[in-house]
Amino acid sequence: MQLQAVLVAGRWRPAQAVGHFRAVNPQTGEPCGPDYPVSSWHDCDQALDAACEAFAQLRRTPGEQIARFLERYAERIEARAEQIVQAAHEETALPVRPRLAEVELPRTTGQLRQAAQAARDGSWCRPTIDTKLNIRSILAPLGPVCVMGPNNFPLAFGSASGGDFAAAIAAGCPVLAKAHSSHPTTTRLFAEEAFEAVQETGLPAATVQLLYRLRHEDGLRLVADPRLGATGYTGSRASGLKLKAAADAAGRPIYLELSSINPVVILPGALQENLEQIVQDFATSCLLGCGQFCTNPGLVLLLEGEPAERFIRQAVERFEQTPPGVLLSGGVLENLKASVRLLQEAGAELLTGGRELPGPGFRYANTLLRVSAARFLQNPCEFQTEAFGNSSLMVTAADAEQLCQVIDRLEGNLTGTIYAGSGQEEEQLYEQVAFHLRPRVGRLLNNKMPTGVAVTAAMNHGGPYPATGHPHFTAVGIPPAIWRFTMLQCYDNVPQHRLPEALRDRNPTGTLWRYVDGRWTQEDIA
Amino acid sequence: MQLQAVLVAGRWRPAQAVGHFRAVNPQTGEPCGPDYPVSSWHDCDQALDAACEAFAQLRRTPGEQIARFLERYAERIEARAEQIVQAAHEETALPVRPRLAEVELPRTTGQLRQAAQAARDGSWCRPTIDTKLNIRSILAPLGPVCVMGPNNFPLAFGSASGGDFAAAIAAGCPVLAKAHSSHPTTTRLFAEEAFEAVQETGLPAATVQLLYRLRHEDGLRLVADPRLGATGYTGSRASGLKLKAAADAAGRPIYLELSSINPVVILPGALQENLEQIVQDFATSCLLGCGQFCTNPGLVLLLEGEPAERFIRQAVERFEQTPPGVLLSGGVLENLKASVRLLQEAGAELLTGGRELPGPGFRYANTLLRVSAARFLQNPCEFQTEAFGNSSLMVTAADAEQLCQVIDRLEGNLTGTIYAGSGQEEEQLYEQVAFHLRPRVGRLLNNKMPTGVAVTAAMNHGGPYPATGHPHFTAVGIPPAIWRFTMLQCYDNVPQHRLPEALRDRNPTGTLWRYVDGRWTQEDIA
Repeated sequence: MQLQAVLVAGRWRPAQAVGHFRAVNPQTGEPCGPDYPVSSWHDCDQALDAACEAFAQLRRTPGEQIARFLERYAERIEARAEQIVQAAHEETALPVRPRLAEVELPRTTGQLRQAAQAARDGSWCRPTIDTKLNIRSILAPLGPVCVMGPNNFPLAFGSASGGDFAAAIAAGCPVLAKAHSSHPTTTRLFAEEAFEAVQETGLPAATVQLLYRLRHEDGLRLVADPRLGATGYTGSRASGLKLKAAADAAGRPIYLELSSINPVVILPGALQENLEQIVQDFATSCLLGCGQFCTNPGLVLLLEGEPAERFIRQAVERFEQTPPGVLLSGGVLENLKASVRLLQEAGAELLTGGRELPGPGFRYANTLLRVSAARFLQNPCEFQTEAFGNSSLMVTAADAEQLCQVIDRLEGNLTGTIYAGSGQEEEQLYEQVAFHLRPRVGRLLNNKMPTGVAVTAAMNHGGPYPATGHPHFTAVGIPPAIWRFTMLQCYDNVPQHRLPEALRDRNPTGTLWRYVDGRWTQEDIA
Repeated sequence: MQLQAVLVAGRWRPAQAVGHFRAVNPQTGEPCGPDYPVSSWHDCDQALDAACEAFAQLRRTPGEQIARFLERYAERIEARAEQIVQAAHEETALPVRPRLAEVELPRTTGQLRQAAQAARDGSWCRPTIDTKLNIRSILAPLGPVCVMGPNNFPLAFGSASGGDFAAAIAAGCPVLAKAHSSHPTTTRLFAEEAFEAVQETGLPAATVQLLYRLRHEDGLRLVADPRLGATGYTGSRASGLKLKAAADAAGRPIYLELSSINPVVILPGALQENLEQIVQDFATSCLLGCGQFCTNPGLVLLLEGEPAERFIRQAVERFEQTPPGVLLSGGVLENLKASVRLLQEAGAELLTGGRELPGPGFRYANTLLRVSAARFLQNPCEFQTEAFGNSSLMVTAADAEQLCQVIDRLEGNLTGTIYAGSGQEEEQLYEQVAFHLRPRVGRLLNNKMPTGVAVTAAMNHGGPYPATGHPHFTAVGIPPAIWRFTMLQCYDNVPQHRLPEALRDRNPTGTLWRYVDGRWTQEDIA
């Protein structure tokens, strides 16, 4: 059997395979595309060695050259956009337009270009200088980064193209990409273009490497390997926590973006003033991409009463009127079925959906469930089961106090949203709810659904455990996403000529931001 | 038996004890001071509940008030300095003068005052604003912080007085201090003053709490408790890694400052130009505080040759001439004996010392060992055994390449030092060595021993695992040390009046530094 080559140590070569697999077209349920290898540890081992060599060279590579790579790569992606988008569509069933071609692809290249700007500018390394003591510090790249991307964003979070990739490269870390096995061809096309761009811009050959799939034990071994600087993982909680345990035990940093049910609190005033719009926002947000977003609104909290009932009725109507999309894979479908069943068994009432739809492909009816806050509080863990997909759970609370009790029992989430109307009473209610919700979520939104995640320095696509592994970091937003792949390096009594340029008295670009003696400045040091 | 009270929930009250202990005077080896309780889980549980309540109040407390507490506390420490220093001397045998009274105490109050400035100024929270998208983010306190201080800095790293304490409080996190059981009275005196200052400045009563000792299983349970925001631990690797495993498994951040042997590379040119001074620097640094510093130079790397031999001879002389100090505890002595034995068994040659000294008290002869780089490379793990105390291992390498091989096998360390002379050849050697050493250490020093750790924003008292748990963070330096106890909190589409003041268009103080649309500024947003 002819298996696709892996990209290791600057060469597309046959994998030392211990198995093989194919992608599955979610619209038909049939295998599609070529055969891909499951790599042995030997492939990992070689890739790690090569990554270390590449890292040693990258440490001496100017940010400008890294920037050129990222920009050239973005251009090459655009030149091959049609093929990439087509492959992603075949492997994920996500719509070509607008989703893949008009939203996710431009986001991907935009992210790479933002990362290029950061690499060129250098301010991401946060130079900090105490001139009196001649102590100076900087954030420096951690070493080779293993990126394990998720199933739901084949481009913008792709292992060889997405946010973690861009952030790691901008920091100066080589990337060892482990493709998500649901879209190997998409990832291969990216890696092909990345590798061409690597060669065109003269970066070390192993700056980008690609493996398609590993045995579980090799994955655990990989994230714990001392040659690795860090891992960036986006995906399911079950797999992520296993990787975390392995990496933690070895003291290797691992950044996880795991499950999140993204509570949305809709206060009575908001319903009074804006019910139809909110129903529409909610349905659009929850069913977008068939609900397969990490920021999907999976939990809606309402205060009991006629407005809540109206909201629920209209949401049900809308969920029933909206044609359900195709899920990413059979695994997603099975997991969704199991999660909805679990919620029902815990005592949630099924309002609509709750069943697999006839094929071809992986389809599930748009689903809404409801439960009282009192019931929720009896079993808060189970009611927070993430039903990844086109499903959401409504919780109705008797009063504000009970609502806040529910919030207090929430696990860490990426986002939390409050819809509030005007008026002083509503404002007081907002304050109360926000006080409880704030520490449980990474991003707090007002009157806006959480699905959109802008790439800006002010973004937080992170949050308390178990939404992520560490609440200080964000997976989206440049420069902050870059910081995950850095270590703090201090220079004490080191003479000028031996310092990194960013730490010398003279500002190397004139535009580099540095924290000098307690002030942020772009000036030289006198 | 009358046991000392614990400070829980704003009250000095009897512990629910499961045991008791006394400190030991290291100069006599005899128990000293009153009896202290080993707390049950019940005490932890109550303290955690109280800390959560205090945190809810602290979230609404202005930085100015927190600053006043820190300043008032510093004043109270100064007013009781003599008694504190006396207690610390009795419990640790560290000299009253200069060490405790003139170095460590002023450092402690200085640190608290720097933390006060940070709390007042507010810039530590790194407000980041995207005006176009109205997305804004800030670092916010994580929640109650458990501080477990080490044995070797009873004041400046004390659980209720030191760097972690100051950083956590400045962030707005209540501190649950777990005293190091070698100096409970010192810690109690601090906590008494802290609690008085809490009351004087109107902070929540449980902002500072104190337990003296826990059963191991309760310590593990404590750092994993979901009510805790994070833990700051300074101490031995063995205990630290157990706590890390427990905290990691529960997804609770834990910041560790563990062992470090702090390699010092002395290049031939430096020896040629400055041998006597370097010998003196080395002996002073290595024997300071009887070598019981986390930044103690425990590994010296030299190139074989006559200058290295002279250095070693003179170092041995100086170690033999210097009267050895008293070690902190019987445990430290036993550990030192075992570590030196282990190094010898691995093949290191004992040059001087290597034996316990006759009592009273815990004394060990100043110790130097040596081993060839070739031998080191055969067993790099064992030769990196930390011999915490007045001991150091010399490694002589045949050439620069072998020297770098040794460096490549080093575990993560807090510091790495290179002494280099002048001249172009030496400079090339420096570059080669520094390239290998840089990624393995948090702070790189030139021509200066690593023992001093200045409290400045540019400091890094951190480093790669296993020197710490995460190489991105530092335990010393304000504001960076504060960041450990924060989570990133983003506000998306939130109207002005609901934002934290630091994120509103108007700069609340006019001096707050904010990152607005890619620029650091103290200006209002137009």
